[in-house]
Amino acid sequence: MFFVTEDELIARYFAPLAGPHALGLKDDTALYAPPEGHELVLTVDALVAGVHFFADDPPAAIARKAMRVNISDIASKGAEPQGYLLTLALPHGVGEDWLKAFAGALGEDAQRYRCPLMGGDTVSTPGPLAISLTAIGCVPQGKMTRRTGAKAGDFIYVTGTIGDGALGLHVNNPQPPKWVSNLPAGEREFLRARYLEPQPRLDFAPVVRDFAHGAMDVSDGLVGDLTKMMRVSQTAARVELAQVPLSNAARTAIAGEPGLFETAVTGGDDYEILCTVAAANAKAFEQAAQQAWIAVTRIGEVIEGRAGEVSFLGSDGAPRTFAHGSYSHF
Amino acid sequence: MFFVTEDELIARYFAPLAGPHALGLKDDTALYAPPEGHELVLTVDALVAGVHFFADDPPAAIARKAMRVNISDIASKGAEPQGYLLTLALPHGVGEDWLKAFAGALGEDAQRYRCPLMGGDTVSTPGPLAISLTAIGCVPQGKMTRRTGAKAGDFIYVTGTIGDGALGLHVNNPQPPKWVSNLPAGEREFLRARYLEPQPRLDFAPVVRDFAHGAMDVSDGLVGDLTKMMRVSQTAARVELAQVPLSNAARTAIAGEPGLFETAVTGGDDYEILCTVAAANAKAFEQAAQQAWIAVTRIGEVIEGRAGEVSFLGSDGAPRTFAHGSYSHF
Repeated sequence: MFFVTEDELIARYFAPLAGPHALGLKDDTALYAPPEGHELVLTVDALVAGVHFFADDPPAAIARKAMRVNISDIASKGAEPQGYLLTLALPHGVGEDWLKAFAGALGEDAQRYRCPLMGGDTVSTPGPLAISLTAIGCVPQGKMTRRTGAKAGDFIYVTGTIGDGALGLHVNNPQPPKWVSNLPAGEREFLRARYLEPQPRLDFAPVVRDFAHGAMDVSDGLVGDLTKMMRVSQTAARVELAQVPLSNAARTAIAGEPGLFETAVTGGDDYEILCTVAAANAKAFEQAAQQAWIAVTRIGEVIEGRAGEVSFLGSDGAPRTFAHGSYSHF
Repeated sequence: MFFVTEDELIARYFAPLAGPHALGLKDDTALYAPPEGHELVLTVDALVAGVHFFADDPPAAIARKAMRVNISDIASKGAEPQGYLLTLALPHGVGEDWLKAFAGALGEDAQRYRCPLMGGDTVSTPGPLAISLTAIGCVPQGKMTRRTGAKAGDFIYVTGTIGDGALGLHVNNPQPPKWVSNLPAGEREFLRARYLEPQPRLDFAPVVRDFAHGAMDVSDGLVGDLTKMMRVSQTAARVELAQVPLSNAARTAIAGEPGLFETAVTGGDDYEILCTVAAANAKAFEQAAQQAWIAVTRIGEVIEGRAGEVSFLGSDGAPRTFAHGSYSHF
């Protein structure tokens, strides 16, 4: 490799990212205390080249994805990011340009989400490039919104639009399926950007904290994630598929090839927030979302029933089932 | 792979390890607050098959190594472990037996070090098996012992014995060098165990906290790690190599092949604690170490001088230099 030691690599690319808790990366550890009256929300997500991204995706996009999938988890709990620890496994041949762009994008996102580097480990690997990012968030004591908190009678909401990431994955494929070439260039680029650069709904965290009974981010597909949430909440749900919010680009793609609707609702990589809100608070919740400039759409309701049983109703009122409820890496 | 979903894998092998902060692994995040008046000490270490361990090392040994290298970092800061987050990148073909043994050993170590699972991420990889473990420790406010804290006039101490891990790496090699076959079987096994199963000096953490000015664990070789500590502390040091504590097995190996002394002091994988203590406190420190049943040896002293300049003196009083100050994975 081109650098002599791990220390040089750290000094050159990662020390400039070090936040106040990183002790200048001169120690083996970070030192951090949450604000008084707060608890920590901890999460970790790993990305492997060839599994979670294409090895030749832009390094800045890979960095943003690694950061943002974690920010998304933290936001969905109603928490605020505090910092992160990074593990980077580098194959031989990763060059200065790659590292510079990767670290630069991490630094920008750290600013954007107020989530500075606390520490990390850099190792070499004979395998593909891999990243594991542990993010630390904090939330006022007792205020974390859990995935297990949905209650029968709650309305079910999602932020933003669903399916763009899953469709964008195909757009970004070096050998894209035929429907991609039929899309207008602007819509192709929109979907690609939605796949490459998730926009975690951090501004929505206070709304989740104040109003949601249950919440999670949508990362493995709306159908599977909602099913999972109902299962751990010991509740059932009814969803009207016609209500699922779609972007114009997704609508265009689905109009050309209706089978893509299933991709959109099961494919994952949305990084929107799925949450349930007591019917009595629905109006106040919708107003708070509007004040945070976050679009929310009511897609169904939580009902009594067998844990995890979700009816997905078509516009004809008939239930639909999906072959693959959610994307699985196994 | 043999399991259908990541969820099943988690339910079968990792949910049984979940501690009180893991929320039953039903959420995306862990929830944790340090005890009042305490700060967090955070660290992450990654291990990659073929780089940091042999792919066919026993899975329990790999689990223990992943856990213990982090416990060692936390102990060296005078802190107590609170829990960990685990990223596991699994290649195809990793079977139930492997996972069972790996998770079982993690569970035992979590008990041993009072460091339960808080959360994690399991992904598949086309590359080698890789593990990243983020450990959370805590320490009374303001009491973390830093690597940067060494002061001129301090005595330099190490716990245990140095070099066993580096020699054990060779013993454990499927094609070991010739000197290995000349060692008595008992000494071979001692060195192999020292390599495969680090014994982090957690019982020493309170002694570090109470007495050490500067501290770190020895993971990349005594020579390089001490040099690094002096550099970040803006101090120099003088070390008497004859004082470096060696196990009987290491002594036997070195007696047969004197060049192995350099391996012992530069090779790494010691997971002993290197610390500096004010000369005036040396006696009290040594007594406290004895009461914690931890052997400590004084190997030199911190002096005024150019930052990071360390004189390693042979038994003839002449300085020695080493071709490779510390093991580097690059």
